[in-house]
Amino acid sequence: MESKRLAGEKAAEFVKDGMVVGLGTGSTVYYTIMKLAERMKQGLVFKGVPTSVETEKIAARLGIPLISKGEINKIDLGIDGADAIDPDFVLIKGGGGALLREKIVAEAADQFIVVADPGKFVPNLADVEIPVEVIPFASELTEKHLKSLGCHTKLRVNNNTAFITDNGNYILDCKFEEIKNPKELETQILRIPGVAENGLFTDMANKIITLNALGEVVILAK
Amino acid sequence: MESKRLAGEKAAEFVKDGMVVGLGTGSTVYYTIMKLAERMKQGLVFKGVPTSVETEKIAARLGIPLISKGEINKIDLGIDGADAIDPDFVLIKGGGGALLREKIVAEAADQFIVVADPGKFVPNLADVEIPVEVIPFASELTEKHLKSLGCHTKLRVNNNTAFITDNGNYILDCKFEEIKNPKELETQILRIPGVAENGLFTDMANKIITLNALGEVVILAK
Repeated sequence: MESKRLAGEKAAEFVKDGMVVGLGTGSTVYYTIMKLAERMKQGLVFKGVPTSVETEKIAARLGIPLISKGEINKIDLGIDGADAIDPDFVLIKGGGGALLREKIVAEAADQFIVVADPGKFVPNLADVEIPVEVIPFASELTEKHLKSLGCHTKLRVNNNTAFITDNGNYILDCKFEEIKNPKELETQILRIPGVAENGLFTDMANKIITLNALGEVVILAK
Repeated sequence: MESKRLAGEKAAEFVKDGMVVGLGTGSTVYYTIMKLAERMKQGLVFKGVPTSVETEKIAARLGIPLISKGEINKIDLGIDGADAIDPDFVLIKGGGGALLREKIVAEAADQFIVVADPGKFVPNLADVEIPVEVIPFASELTEKHLKSLGCHTKLRVNNNTAFITDNGNYILDCKFEEIKNPKELETQILRIPGVAENGLFTDMANKIITLNALGEVVILAK
């Protein structure tokens, strides 16, 4: 937990007065949000855009002002965690099920900072399942189509029933044999009708905040 | 209406015993469904997969057996209308708001037949608005991103409030200045986080049933 806290808190330093900040979801970015609430008490002025119902609740509890639906014109900075990061800064996200909103915010943000403990770095993305958010209608057809791309699929469940995302969709966790070109794979997945979004985030992260082998916070930039 | 009826009814001839048939949505395919119900009384055995709540109701009223959710393994034939068709068989669909389910079914179908009165043929797709189905969360960001591709956008409304699709999403009707490469545009739109689907159907239609200048039914094949 200490490495998550250190990486998460460091990211809060990048928030400047007047910014609109995309607030990610998960155990590392939780520390960013806590730190931001602390800085807010010391005078920092900013507004948040939460990427999940969970983060919305945390931010509301801490008194962080949130932008109302329909009034998000721009996002200056997005801060979020990741489930896996490869050497090219390609991310896999969606373990928490909030990938769609997270991706909308990450894409829209002028700058996108990822906070991650060192365990999230993987040499090969194919070692990790890619969460794919699919529309419930005829999801068996979408699943079949996904399999044709060369993966095993697994419907995510929660208490023995299908897990439902904040957008009312299912998640299929997809394990590929190999991933040669993540961006091309992302496009192939997105072209499947019935897929709402997928957990591959290519060309998104500007900075990654993590810890080195000595346990020091480091900022990796592309 | 006569041309819609003639084209729609003709398509019903392609349904064979034992088939699973994707049933489209709209005023032309309505005649296909009516004709199929008639053929059913004469002994035809098939099952339908409706692409909208509207079509589901019509089919149920006519006693057409429908496949239950979760049990659609394959679709032998899809029959649907289109709002616009270009000389390369690229379709624009979604005027009725059912584009996402229609696309899932069209993509999955072994064969996809389009029924259309001659008025649906356009020389230039850029003359027609492309409906894009977007997730409500931060839809203003998705709209901004869509505009950056070179279109004007218009939120579809119904009784002064946002029109909601069967999947709980909004529709943005997008008018492009020009469309050089529909398939590339389709991919660009689909890569925008927040876009659930778009109304460009490329490489989908195997046959188009319409009327020629003499008012005779013709079957165009690619």
